[in-house]
Amino acid sequence: MIDLTELTYDERGLIPAIAQDRVSGKVLMLAWMDTEALRRTLATRRATYWSRSRQEYWVKGESSGHTQHVSQVRRDCDSDAILLTVDQVGPACHTGAPTCFDVYRPLLAQEADAGPTGSTKPIEESHAAVSA
Amino acid sequence: MIDLTELTYDERGLIPAIAQDRVSGKVLMLAWMDTEALRRTLATRRATYWSRSRQEYWVKGESSGHTQHVSQVRRDCDSDAILLTVDQVGPACHTGAPTCFDVYRPLLAQEADAGPTGSTKPIEESHAAVSA
Repeated sequence: MIDLTELTYDERGLIPAIAQDRVSGKVLMLAWMDTEALRRTLATRRATYWSRSRQEYWVKGESSGHTQHVSQVRRDCDSDAILLTVDQVGPACHTGAPTCFDVYRPLLAQEADAGPTGSTKPIEESHAAVSA
Repeated sequence: MIDLTELTYDERGLIPAIAQDRVSGKVLMLAWMDTEALRRTLATRRATYWSRSRQEYWVKGESSGHTQHVSQVRRDCDSDAILLTVDQVGPACHTGAPTCFDVYRPLLAQEADAGPTGSTKPIEESHAAVSA
């Protein structure tokens, strides 16, 4: 049994939680948890976050039906971030996109060069490349 | 060209950045950037973060050689998190682990049940399961 207070929370009492799709490996979203959200997530296996804007707990998919069934929860080496492995029902993003990182203008979308090892092309993007 | 100030930074001027391995899809780490770290990352294609503990920029792998060559940078739907797709040289974690989420006691490591769809087992863990 891990004491959830062993984790390192920020000054708001929150820790960033990354949700990754168990099957596709896609990073679905980043949201925030406090100890209670994490406790609820572990107890129910449904991803439950803390909404900073609404200042309330939200069970992912509670209204949309796009729930996240949690298979694994890991912390990182500093215990200040957690990674959830989830089975995502439907799209993860409230916009209807499969992930929250899907359809927003990429800051960087293409390799300028193949690098010293001649590595392969990055994951294809259907959007126009926008570099800063 | 995206104005990097369009992103939403926290009260410290920081945005969480997830690094994901381009080839394996593994989530390697979560770190923090400000506009300057992001600008440097986009300009050099080497992941550059802001260290909250040391209060300085750090080019990932600058001392260890375990650099991250950045293929893609995407923001999420709220523009308050970014996802880097990287080619990781060597282990991502300063402990020598392949990822920062690798070897730390999982908070939840096994399915309590296979779920309504009889889904397959989650990714295997070599560590003992520790549930809260």
